[in-house]
Amino acid sequence: MEAFRWFVAALCAAALAGLVSIIFVLVWVLHYREGLAWDGGSAEFNWHPVLMVIGFIFLQGIAIIIYRLPWTWQCSKLTMKFIHAGLNLLAFILAVVSLVAVFDYHNAASIPNMYSLHSWLGLVAVILYCLQLVLGVGMYLIPITPVSWRAAFMPLHVYGGLLLFASVIAVALMGITEKLIFAQKYSSSPPEAIFVNVLGLLLVVFGALILWIATRTSWKRPSDQILHTLHTNGDCEDNSKVGPAMSQLSDGTDAGTFGDVRKRNNKLDDQDN
Amino acid sequence: MEAFRWFVAALCAAALAGLVSIIFVLVWVLHYREGLAWDGGSAEFNWHPVLMVIGFIFLQGIAIIIYRLPWTWQCSKLTMKFIHAGLNLLAFILAVVSLVAVFDYHNAASIPNMYSLHSWLGLVAVILYCLQLVLGVGMYLIPITPVSWRAAFMPLHVYGGLLLFASVIAVALMGITEKLIFAQKYSSSPPEAIFVNVLGLLLVVFGALILWIATRTSWKRPSDQILHTLHTNGDCEDNSKVGPAMSQLSDGTDAGTFGDVRKRNNKLDDQDN
Repeated sequence: MEAFRWFVAALCAAALAGLVSIIFVLVWVLHYREGLAWDGGSAEFNWHPVLMVIGFIFLQGIAIIIYRLPWTWQCSKLTMKFIHAGLNLLAFILAVVSLVAVFDYHNAASIPNMYSLHSWLGLVAVILYCLQLVLGVGMYLIPITPVSWRAAFMPLHVYGGLLLFASVIAVALMGITEKLIFAQKYSSSPPEAIFVNVLGLLLVVFGALILWIATRTSWKRPSDQILHTLHTNGDCEDNSKVGPAMSQLSDGTDAGTFGDVRKRNNKLDDQDN
Repeated sequence: MEAFRWFVAALCAAALAGLVSIIFVLVWVLHYREGLAWDGGSAEFNWHPVLMVIGFIFLQGIAIIIYRLPWTWQCSKLTMKFIHAGLNLLAFILAVVSLVAVFDYHNAASIPNMYSLHSWLGLVAVILYCLQLVLGVGMYLIPITPVSWRAAFMPLHVYGGLLLFASVIAVALMGITEKLIFAQKYSSSPPEAIFVNVLGLLLVVFGALILWIATRTSWKRPSDQILHTLHTNGDCEDNSKVGPAMSQLSDGTDAGTFGDVRKRNNKLDDQDN
């Protein structure tokens, strides 16, 4: 029960930091900047920070920890893989649209592209994220991929995912820095600069919480073998059967279950989580 | 043997990326900028990037992976803790000197302090790093601290260390971005901007490699219990006794030893590594 409460607290804090970040980036572009439009001007550029924060940071963060939500353990592993891949695909699409916005704006205003460290690292991150998506689908969603390959690739998949997530936040912080300097909003410390600095801090807090949740082994989704001992059908739609099992796992009536089930699970689950 | 070779390859790549980063930051300030001095001018500011890269990034990175070097397993755990703490203390001192340089420069030139996101996040990182040092010494170097406290605090110590390390690299990338824009070296993409962008990429590569090495459980230092089965005295100075044991651990004459010893060790070592 203690472990479950800590998990929920960390999850709520992460969700709060993420949602407040989205509100902050929207207030930034709608109140302090030129709003949102698709006209080749500054309002088109503004889609860049908005879509990056919503897609490439918030959705990617949620995708990373989706397996850890106890409420999803009644769903089959395959269903969860599709949700994980789907959220990452959506994050990737939003990142690409966000890049189109910034290239469009640059080209319309004859501003050169790809000269800053922000642009270099950002493009590397988008390319590697695409590679991670393709390899992830190839390894874990194509049924014929050998289990031994899945197991061998898993450490790299997990490490790559966490590194890309952290890198994207770092690139966002560099983007915020650039934008405030280019808009000459820095040296005099106006309300806009302070407001956007707080957005930067919120993104770091969101990232730190997601990384904390994602790296606690005691909060892992139990292996299918363990879950099968608690219920007979692991499919998401079969709530009537898995309800009681889930309540045992997550509502804490058995004080030790949340942690204990996961501890038993660590060795079994190596090849496919 | 295979695991040992991969470890050495990762270590050499990290050392190379780190050392080339140091050369790059020195070339940047000595060749492209005003050199190094302690005169309140730009040459004093230049100590800021130099000391941050050498101390707060390179030395901190080495301190993080110091326990993983097989050549140090003949040293007692206490000796290694002192080296780990000493390197982190040195990194902290260099970071503080580096902050003094930038405040001195700002004050002499009447440039405001602490208005940018770089400065906010950088100061938070230095303060939390100091807290991590104090708590680390209190928990793991003061003999009377209960073993149960050490075990309970270890996940936070490891996570905090890795998060701070990643954050410091992100803050450095923001600093590079700021400096190039303020020096008006960006929009025309001169050789200096490209050179310094490469420095930024190198710092990310160094960070990624250190985080990879630090998070591979199969590369962990074996627990003292395991090491004691291979030699009778774990003290650093007693090479005559531990030499043969170390060769068994690290030279690969027993092909499985490097990985196997560490696997046996995982459960034993939870409370104090």
